[in-house]
Amino acid sequence: MSKKITSRAEDYSLWYNDIIQHADLAENSGVRGCMVIKPYGYAIWEKMQAELDKKFKATGHVNAYFPLFIPKSYFSKEASHVDGFAKECAVVTHYRLKNSEEGDGIVVDEDAKLEEELIVRPTSETIIWDTYRKWIQSYRDLPLLINQWANVVRWEMRTRLFLRTAEFLWQEGHTAHATKKEALEETDKIINIYSDFAQDFMAMPVIIGSKSENERFAGALETYTIEALMQDGKALQAGTSHFLGQNFAKAFDVKFATKEGTKEYVWATSWGVSTRLMGALVMTHSDDKGLVLPPKLAPYQVVIVPIYKSEEQLKEITQSVVKIKESLEAKGISVKFDDRDTHKPGWKFAEYELKGVPVRLAIGMRDLENGTIEVARRDTLEKETLQMEDIDIKVENLLEKIQNNLFNKAIDFRNENTYMANSYDEFKELIEKGGFVYAHWDGTSKTEDFIKNDTKATIRCITFDSEGKDGKCIHSGKKSNQRVLFAKAY
Amino acid sequence: MSKKITSRAEDYSLWYNDIIQHADLAENSGVRGCMVIKPYGYAIWEKMQAELDKKFKATGHVNAYFPLFIPKSYFSKEASHVDGFAKECAVVTHYRLKNSEEGDGIVVDEDAKLEEELIVRPTSETIIWDTYRKWIQSYRDLPLLINQWANVVRWEMRTRLFLRTAEFLWQEGHTAHATKKEALEETDKIINIYSDFAQDFMAMPVIIGSKSENERFAGALETYTIEALMQDGKALQAGTSHFLGQNFAKAFDVKFATKEGTKEYVWATSWGVSTRLMGALVMTHSDDKGLVLPPKLAPYQVVIVPIYKSEEQLKEITQSVVKIKESLEAKGISVKFDDRDTHKPGWKFAEYELKGVPVRLAIGMRDLENGTIEVARRDTLEKETLQMEDIDIKVENLLEKIQNNLFNKAIDFRNENTYMANSYDEFKELIEKGGFVYAHWDGTSKTEDFIKNDTKATIRCITFDSEGKDGKCIHSGKKSNQRVLFAKAY
Repeated sequence: MSKKITSRAEDYSLWYNDIIQHADLAENSGVRGCMVIKPYGYAIWEKMQAELDKKFKATGHVNAYFPLFIPKSYFSKEASHVDGFAKECAVVTHYRLKNSEEGDGIVVDEDAKLEEELIVRPTSETIIWDTYRKWIQSYRDLPLLINQWANVVRWEMRTRLFLRTAEFLWQEGHTAHATKKEALEETDKIINIYSDFAQDFMAMPVIIGSKSENERFAGALETYTIEALMQDGKALQAGTSHFLGQNFAKAFDVKFATKEGTKEYVWATSWGVSTRLMGALVMTHSDDKGLVLPPKLAPYQVVIVPIYKSEEQLKEITQSVVKIKESLEAKGISVKFDDRDTHKPGWKFAEYELKGVPVRLAIGMRDLENGTIEVARRDTLEKETLQMEDIDIKVENLLEKIQNNLFNKAIDFRNENTYMANSYDEFKELIEKGGFVYAHWDGTSKTEDFIKNDTKATIRCITFDSEGKDGKCIHSGKKSNQRVLFAKAY
Repeated sequence: MSKKITSRAEDYSLWYNDIIQHADLAENSGVRGCMVIKPYGYAIWEKMQAELDKKFKATGHVNAYFPLFIPKSYFSKEASHVDGFAKECAVVTHYRLKNSEEGDGIVVDEDAKLEEELIVRPTSETIIWDTYRKWIQSYRDLPLLINQWANVVRWEMRTRLFLRTAEFLWQEGHTAHATKKEALEETDKIINIYSDFAQDFMAMPVIIGSKSENERFAGALETYTIEALMQDGKALQAGTSHFLGQNFAKAFDVKFATKEGTKEYVWATSWGVSTRLMGALVMTHSDDKGLVLPPKLAPYQVVIVPIYKSEEQLKEITQSVVKIKESLEAKGISVKFDDRDTHKPGWKFAEYELKGVPVRLAIGMRDLENGTIEVARRDTLEKETLQMEDIDIKVENLLEKIQNNLFNKAIDFRNENTYMANSYDEFKELIEKGGFVYAHWDGTSKTEDFIKNDTKATIRCITFDSEGKDGKCIHSGKKSNQRVLFAKAY
């Protein structure tokens, strides 16, 4: 079975699917829009989870678990939220199956109809704020800093592995605060955690900013986002942090007694990243040869392939490999030694290239004689033969170099594909080319809608440092005090 | 708000609920039968997950993720499985809601009816084996050793926090093997992992054995179980490991090419433990004062409470506490320093007793002068004043002592409540008293059913070491070659 990858130039979308498939990350299941995350893909997700979880806990957050199902009526309580979320969703209406009377299989038991339908959570604000009402009485109970790792379901019509699936995995933080200021600080703190994670671990540069009203989360007063640029010139929203004001506290009647003895509504935030990050990771670094992984998220950072002709040679090589492996592992480097005799070295090389393992070591009899080892890096595809001495230090340095190189390469790509548009014609031309386009905007939904309909570009975010630079809206010509970031997006 | 705990003698069931509630482990949600796992409870579950995950990975297993939904037709493919699982379950029939035409809220959109209903997974054998068909072609693809951490839903009529809930969290392992022998070895390996985890981490003694045919998993040829004894004399099944033979391979047509070139059906196992373990943990160690946690699973193993009258005193005490905390943490001990000024020391003492924190340190001004510290252990409720010197070593030893003491106490309890019955009258009397009862059984379902209907006791397991000791069935008087373990059970 050949594992040929379509080139990006040929068909970007096929390229993406080929990588997901051939690097064994995920596949479609027998259930429409739901994916199976395969062990290799899941191992990357576990690494993401571990790092994010550490960051959340280091900033005082704790994990909890809330129900998968939400009663239909909960959604109606927050007016803007219901329009955004309670539409395309999985609805549980019955709780029993039975053998059909015709004896041809099992059917829904109509006697087991739920009095109120349950929605499989598309996001958990409503059920969580219904719970918080019981947990919050006084200022002593605040802040409440809770996160949940969970699966959610949104009945998407067009799905793509990792990027848009009916069921996906995510974390959703839901915090409650005594003051607006504190809630805003939390919203900001989290978007910075997301940004740090994306840049330091995924080696994926992101731009932080706030969403325009059109693009905000349903029920939020403010949505902060991190936006990354994919290799096809499209933007990908990689994480969002929402300031929810007192909307959910009012909808679910969550008040607290202040120190002064008055009763006030609680201030809220919510925030999340999902398995969508897996798609972002793939599209940020991979090439026409397959997946490319930043060392910090690679399930194994180093693979060692023995080159041998006989059992005896393998034995000798193995002795040497065991030592190398131990010295690398002592430095916290994860290593796979692939000594399977069912596959040839060439096959293995191709396999690990496809799977994006950052560093490949190969060692044969001549290496043993010469005290050398072949070191290949996945990012640049360069290889060289090094002296075995201090190989642990050399590999450690190389992994750091690869991590940095991937980030720098992605930054360079973004810089090369980021533009300033000063007229609407110029804007249209640049958007057609693909990439990030900064342009002045008059701040109205009307203009935003027009541009979206006309060019498919949306405002990805209003960056925090863009204010105070006056100009004229590229479309309406009206006064603008900021350039905002436009792009076509996933 | 008083946090009074009902005593076990007064009402065991209320006692259990009081502990879950007042130790902040979990609560019922607005969704029937679904619980909210609160941060403190979830932190214990996370510790369980981490340890189990480590053991699974150390034995070559990897994690993956399969869809939440299973098409109804999948269940019909394995005959005995459908009867066991596809009955009381959550059924998704629609994928959209809409605003009602009367304008009074949202209703199910009848135009968005699914062609085939989806079942929220009660367990994942069917969807996983449907996937394995694509993954397994040759003996080179075997064994496949996959685990999944997930939520599942079984529409239980009578629910109890952690012990029996409609939605619960669990891990489910699903492995595929080339030979029957290998699959049986896997089944055995896993039940021993569960047993080691229960005994070494939960400090909960368990008995390993196989289930009688009546009590087997739907679709299994053999079910191994670990059974623990709760303080009310009832047994709790804490984990199961199933040998599935070739049943699922045949149902989903999963064959592999052997080394010899023939085609054979794959051999399967599945195994799982769930948040039910949380209920087992509570009921194994807790007392009338609240939760008691084994140190290895306590979210924090040590809490330090300062005793002070002024800000200045707190400052002085804090200086000393910071050093103690650091020295404990250097030994890998998790410590909480509760310096909140919103609560008095007495309140804090009661709170941590309720929450089962293994060791409590208290330190006041006189301690600072004398170089002493008060050390209280939760398991025995003893306290003593110790010299501050080497406090890290003293606490480390104490934690180990507590872990062992809890296990030994539970073993003693089990020994005191384990009986041999030699006649049916004796059996009935002992079962009524509560506890484990070993008795001879003729091996028939008929006898088993009779005993169950008559006494509510079931065969918990057939222990592996019980064979070859001949006797006569306590009920039928027929020949028996083993005593089996009976009890009333959760």
